[in-house]
Amino acid sequence: MPLRAALRRVTAEPVRAPHPLPGFARSTVDGYAVRAADTYGASEGLPGYLTVTGAVRMGAAPDVTVTAGSAVSMPTGGAIPPGADAVVMIEYTAEAMPGTIEVVRPVAPGEGVVRADEDAAEGQQIIPNGCVLRPQDLGMLAAAGVTSVRVHARPVVTIFSTGDEVVPPDTQVLSPGQVRDATAPALAALVADAGGEPVHGGIVSDDPGALEKALRTALPVSDVIVISAGSSVGTRDETANAVAALGPPGVWCHGLAIKPGKPTLLAECGTGPGRAGTAAFGVPVIGLPGNPRSALVVFRLIGMPLIRLVGGCAAPPPEPSTRATLSRDLASATGRLDVVQVKVSDGVATPLFGVSALLSVLTEADGYIMIPEEATGLDAGTEVEVTLYA
Amino acid sequence: MPLRAALRRVTAEPVRAPHPLPGFARSTVDGYAVRAADTYGASEGLPGYLTVTGAVRMGAAPDVTVTAGSAVSMPTGGAIPPGADAVVMIEYTAEAMPGTIEVVRPVAPGEGVVRADEDAAEGQQIIPNGCVLRPQDLGMLAAAGVTSVRVHARPVVTIFSTGDEVVPPDTQVLSPGQVRDATAPALAALVADAGGEPVHGGIVSDDPGALEKALRTALPVSDVIVISAGSSVGTRDETANAVAALGPPGVWCHGLAIKPGKPTLLAECGTGPGRAGTAAFGVPVIGLPGNPRSALVVFRLIGMPLIRLVGGCAAPPPEPSTRATLSRDLASATGRLDVVQVKVSDGVATPLFGVSALLSVLTEADGYIMIPEEATGLDAGTEVEVTLYA
Repeated sequence: MPLRAALRRVTAEPVRAPHPLPGFARSTVDGYAVRAADTYGASEGLPGYLTVTGAVRMGAAPDVTVTAGSAVSMPTGGAIPPGADAVVMIEYTAEAMPGTIEVVRPVAPGEGVVRADEDAAEGQQIIPNGCVLRPQDLGMLAAAGVTSVRVHARPVVTIFSTGDEVVPPDTQVLSPGQVRDATAPALAALVADAGGEPVHGGIVSDDPGALEKALRTALPVSDVIVISAGSSVGTRDETANAVAALGPPGVWCHGLAIKPGKPTLLAECGTGPGRAGTAAFGVPVIGLPGNPRSALVVFRLIGMPLIRLVGGCAAPPPEPSTRATLSRDLASATGRLDVVQVKVSDGVATPLFGVSALLSVLTEADGYIMIPEEATGLDAGTEVEVTLYA
Repeated sequence: MPLRAALRRVTAEPVRAPHPLPGFARSTVDGYAVRAADTYGASEGLPGYLTVTGAVRMGAAPDVTVTAGSAVSMPTGGAIPPGADAVVMIEYTAEAMPGTIEVVRPVAPGEGVVRADEDAAEGQQIIPNGCVLRPQDLGMLAAAGVTSVRVHARPVVTIFSTGDEVVPPDTQVLSPGQVRDATAPALAALVADAGGEPVHGGIVSDDPGALEKALRTALPVSDVIVISAGSSVGTRDETANAVAALGPPGVWCHGLAIKPGKPTLLAECGTGPGRAGTAAFGVPVIGLPGNPRSALVVFRLIGMPLIRLVGGCAAPPPEPSTRATLSRDLASATGRLDVVQVKVSDGVATPLFGVSALLSVLTEADGYIMIPEEATGLDAGTEVEVTLYA
């Protein structure tokens, strides 16, 4: 991948510096390259005197050597000339007479100098494997002359919507009972945020044969399959049956101790060599609850980390969060993780309520808090960690 | 902008629901649509009995009306039939005999039902102006049948690199004194992160005439101009002169009380109607320090918020951060904001040191802390807020 297109891509190997960086000893200040020993004992009262024998130009090799008693004029970032081991800042010098400066402070060897391999030694790892490339990482690679990087392919995530009531978002007039597919566009965005490549598998009717057929078609071209379930009676079992028909390893679990998101199905299908060539594993399949809000909550917690993992990411990037004080008591059943949407203002987190069918709760929310399995709730005034939506 | 391409784009007007959402009263549970009054007083000991007169199918208009003493079978998400005002969960019913159910718990009017306009009333604002569109916002828009949105154009940000020592990143062999342009690729990534469209203006030599000419060419086609300064002596003044030559309002400030980043220049040039048609304002110009690390630190603090503002963003999206304990004392001069790069592990923030010429300090860092102007430093053990690099 060319560097300019590699932002947020995941490295598929460690990158090492092909040569030392910056590659030559550089000045960190404007001043004079000197032998440090020539400045020892220099002070305002008793300056040292040095003969200026030349000047270093930016971007050019020094054409002069520093010898005992001599100094060479240096710009910040310039190459230290042979013989010099320090740079005196211009602020601590003055022109005593044409061609001679006085130095009023001593410098230690190495002062005012970046060593030739101080940013990176030759062969040193500058970017680890499995790294999500950040802006400064691209800068470091550019500095090292590495203009293309081996990155993992984006995991292809096929998204199916199911349900006889679900119609495409561009349906202008709805018949009574119909709803537009809100989940698939939001899931596609979350897939992209996790570094995946979303593929719309389309809307599949509540017919186990149709779903099984669609899944079989998607299996060889997908790294992950996501089924946004319709909310009709029995659909979830139909999804499980269709997934089970795809062959072992099959369904891992059907139902999670989480609210919202309980009817989630997790499975692994087709042990053949997948797109990524990982023959040991099948394609992960996630069956999401029918309510858009439940589906999006579960997908954030389970689907996005899974896509990052499949995409080679060694450590998930940090999520925005903030500490806030809970505005009111929140009840929760033990043995179940509760995910509660909140608005945050002036350090106060106000829970947003509404049945999980309501999407507006998610668009009004700034983030969410989690009430752990072992808790029976949280009291008003509790300090909570809010994961913020970026 | 079509919805599928609108993730993280900034809305240029509020979006209102074109009709009520979900558009019809829906069941939130599997069960029976009833008149709530018919269930009053029902209990395990004394169930109510109702005649099942039909069933609602998903995605279809109800073809039956609920009358006194009758019930209609309902899937979750199905349309509530006329006459019903509540849905009894299937768990609280049993088939008493074919065609008749017993109900063992009363329901209140509205229970088990989402109103036709509960997610959004007709004309209600569902997405505000200046909103950076998140995945769930795309879901809400899709639900409302809004498949394209008016968004602000991405601000065009022209990036110049200056300095006789600076060569393109694809330069394989460097002459002594030369460095590859690390700053421009990193800046381009930060511009993209802030919602801007980076344009590489190229590398300009340390020649005021060349820079002024390059700036004049960029001015009419840029919303923001960024000059990554070379680090040579006097370059900064040359940048200021070139910027000043572009005409009023000119240079706002030259030098910031921040470390690293002191030599930053902020200016506004060319009051003509810019790309965005904002005739009242010139094009913001940021002159960055020559050291890549200083440049990137300052650009995060000043450049990215500016690009968001120019791009119409009403509120910046939250940045990841974490609280950590400082591992050691940090000194700081009062009257200056200090930005210190840190690694974070197990809740401990360890400062990373090294002159600002070293890029590796930024690639090793997990984030940064800020020591405010009024502080003289921070003690080891202080709880600090670390802004994390995403």
